[in-house]
Amino acid sequence: MILKYEGKTKNVFELEDGHFLLKFKDDVTGENGVFDPGANTVGLTIDGAGLAGLRLTTFFYEKLNEMGVPTHFVSSNMDEATMTVKPATVFGKGLEVICRFRSVGSFLKRYGAYVEEGQPLDAFVEVTIKDDDRLDPPISEDALAQLGILTNDEYATLKEATQKIASFVKDELAKKDLELYDIKLEFGRDAKTNEILLIDEISGGNMRAFRGTEYIEPLELEKIMLAPE
Amino acid sequence: MILKYEGKTKNVFELEDGHFLLKFKDDVTGENGVFDPGANTVGLTIDGAGLAGLRLTTFFYEKLNEMGVPTHFVSSNMDEATMTVKPATVFGKGLEVICRFRSVGSFLKRYGAYVEEGQPLDAFVEVTIKDDDRLDPPISEDALAQLGILTNDEYATLKEATQKIASFVKDELAKKDLELYDIKLEFGRDAKTNEILLIDEISGGNMRAFRGTEYIEPLELEKIMLAPE
Repeated sequence: MILKYEGKTKNVFELEDGHFLLKFKDDVTGENGVFDPGANTVGLTIDGAGLAGLRLTTFFYEKLNEMGVPTHFVSSNMDEATMTVKPATVFGKGLEVICRFRSVGSFLKRYGAYVEEGQPLDAFVEVTIKDDDRLDPPISEDALAQLGILTNDEYATLKEATQKIASFVKDELAKKDLELYDIKLEFGRDAKTNEILLIDEISGGNMRAFRGTEYIEPLELEKIMLAPE
Repeated sequence: MILKYEGKTKNVFELEDGHFLLKFKDDVTGENGVFDPGANTVGLTIDGAGLAGLRLTTFFYEKLNEMGVPTHFVSSNMDEATMTVKPATVFGKGLEVICRFRSVGSFLKRYGAYVEEGQPLDAFVEVTIKDDDRLDPPISEDALAQLGILTNDEYATLKEATQKIASFVKDELAKKDLELYDIKLEFGRDAKTNEILLIDEISGGNMRAFRGTEYIEPLELEKIMLAPE
């Protein structure tokens, strides 16, 4: 088992059978000890955060696979806090695809002259490039095509998949009386078939959830979502 | 004649016949005394900069009107350094539409992980919103639609007009052995007909021009472009 990549919240190993293994860490993104899913740095470490993230990720991926949405998910091992996935190549040096149902975070920071905080948005999709040095700048469909990162057809596929997955997660949260404000997804190409797959985790650290006006922390979100009915 | 708006490089007056009058100032955008067409502040004042900008703007607008491109341009008065224009309303609080033929400026800053400085771009169009407090953030076609600033159809019109006008300016510069790297345009809706019009100036301060690897300052550009054959 070879360590391929050491990430902010996960390490990635290559398995002998060609699959990859994601090891979930207890580090979460944020700044100065405060969780922020949009942040580029590890803000704090919480015991059990890795396993909680894996459990929620597994919950969503199992349902998405059943729905026939193409994902990289194969199986999870809760004892080891690991997830086995299909190998996939990311677009360029990695993209984040964000779906927004309410105006908060970097969208509000950028477009505050035109929107109120928390204003409803219509499953709005935007893409940022993963580039810590340049603070993950937003990028348009045309710029993705211009830079050879995604064709316009691939962008259309990505946007449609993002809205479908985000709406599914929103509906799952609604079952627990929670509201999804936004979610950050990641996609890649299946290393064998080239199919566009949902990759990475789908946990509290990737989304903002509220109960009424109360923000729900990632660990709390995972507890609520996985509580027996 | 009523002062309607005091801009960084121009003042805008309303005339009694319903037209507007733009008075070109000698202030140019930049920082710390250095010209930068992408800057948000007045960087320096140069005697004759206003008139030079008006002369080049007039040169381009007269040709664009002949070509049948919809613009706000009516006439210029070189003695007063003023330009008479049709009244137009801007999109939202104002947009800047940039057409890029080479990767420099804010595009390079944002996407430097994917492009080399000066790399050719294919008449790439992007939009930023005018918002000094938020440093003129870029905005996607979908975000413009989401915020009610531009419909997708209007975006298509704007993009096509931008590429047509930018290519025309590029060709004019090429006649003087200059190369257009990028240009910043502004559009509005005709206050009477609602037609999308090119507005504002088209001068050295709106574009980056090079002779070989040598950057041509706005005043020098205007001198070269308006020199007799």
